[in-house]
Amino acid sequence: MKLNVLFSPLNADELYFAQKTTVVIDVLRASTTIIAALSNGAREVIPVGTVEFAVKISGGMFGGQTLIGGERNTKRIEGFALGNSPFEYSRNAVENKTIILYTTNGSKAVARAKFSRELFVCSFNNLLGMAQHLAELDKDVEILCAGHNNFFSLEDTVCAGMLIARTKRLNRSAKISDSSRAAMALYEKFGENILEMLENTEHGKRLIQNGFKKDIEYCSRYNITKNIPSFDGNTLKLLDQSTM
Amino acid sequence: MKLNVLFSPLNADELYFAQKTTVVIDVLRASTTIIAALSNGAREVIPVGTVEFAVKISGGMFGGQTLIGGERNTKRIEGFALGNSPFEYSRNAVENKTIILYTTNGSKAVARAKFSRELFVCSFNNLLGMAQHLAELDKDVEILCAGHNNFFSLEDTVCAGMLIARTKRLNRSAKISDSSRAAMALYEKFGENILEMLENTEHGKRLIQNGFKKDIEYCSRYNITKNIPSFDGNTLKLLDQSTM
Repeated sequence: MKLNVLFSPLNADELYFAQKTTVVIDVLRASTTIIAALSNGAREVIPVGTVEFAVKISGGMFGGQTLIGGERNTKRIEGFALGNSPFEYSRNAVENKTIILYTTNGSKAVARAKFSRELFVCSFNNLLGMAQHLAELDKDVEILCAGHNNFFSLEDTVCAGMLIARTKRLNRSAKISDSSRAAMALYEKFGENILEMLENTEHGKRLIQNGFKKDIEYCSRYNITKNIPSFDGNTLKLLDQSTM
Repeated sequence: MKLNVLFSPLNADELYFAQKTTVVIDVLRASTTIIAALSNGAREVIPVGTVEFAVKISGGMFGGQTLIGGERNTKRIEGFALGNSPFEYSRNAVENKTIILYTTNGSKAVARAKFSRELFVCSFNNLLGMAQHLAELDKDVEILCAGHNNFFSLEDTVCAGMLIARTKRLNRSAKISDSSRAAMALYEKFGENILEMLENTEHGKRLIQNGFKKDIEYCSRYNITKNIPSFDGNTLKLLDQSTM
């Protein structure tokens, strides 16, 4: 297996991902929120690339069973039921519901990589489970950092570096590209204290300014679940652990 | 001043660069080659984004005064007078000539950033002079890594990190973005021995396989010239040092 990192969804077009195994990372906060929603019983999460598409497909769905969530530049979109904070996706709010999710970076990254053969969503919350699954799969993997408005995201890269380090530890034959070497070096440099790292990134500072300090603490938690969101071409659902 | 790094030309569209100060880095080998050509007396270098455009504009120029140079995936393009090795751009070959240059990454990066107010070209060869000029300019700077086929390039990023480190040392008020922090960390990690770093990158290994080991040694040389190629919207010429 070979592990490669893409630092922005713009680095590759949609066809680049065709038939590949892809892991999407958007630590602040879409990955974390998707994992929370599905772990709390949401039936599925439908990531969309535009607000217009979110509104359009929600129109054809049963009102009570569907929730639209999303944010633009950290703030909930007007008229949407939910924003992009993992705390909003409680069992009470999302159980048995379909979530249509639009976010500035994360849902667009999933949309970009939609032609992947397998597509998983990772954050610090499920990082060890993700590494274990990748190490067992033993395939080439593209780790796609959602980035921030198509630019580099330090927190996504550090998470990618940690995922690579853990996966390599579990599968000694894993090879790494230059971008993976860089991500691992950045994990070594900045990853000792995840919470502190997140609070000191540009995105983290903006979230704190907007009152989401608690979200950052939640996003920083390592290995609190083994759940892995998996994309079937249309929706994200939890990977059936019994088939792993 | 604030220093920001873009890890791929695709991270931003052409208008992003409008009115900005931009430094393009393509260590292996376009930056290095452009600096060599102008230092050896070439009148100007015209970077182009496509082979077709290189051929088209060369048609309207005086044959004897114009040379087309370029490569695709390390190899000289058929029918072009020169490839992309700095050794081909000797004084004997290029003095008083106009060079039309197409390369896989570097010339496309310059084309992408063509709307910049100021656009400079940097490699390890002129890094200290570039840092001195930026520190004196005291403006916000976008450092654009040409990357490799639009993907991340470790060597360009390490060079960017070294440029940021040197510039900050000369201008203590310089602020840095998250991507600049990452580039500096990668410079600290991989920059101790530039030649060894270059030889061990994916691109470096490919150049060695194709017989360009000597080029890599040349590209690794630090501060061998103060010459700075500067783009006027159409062509690259040496920055007039007397006006600095």
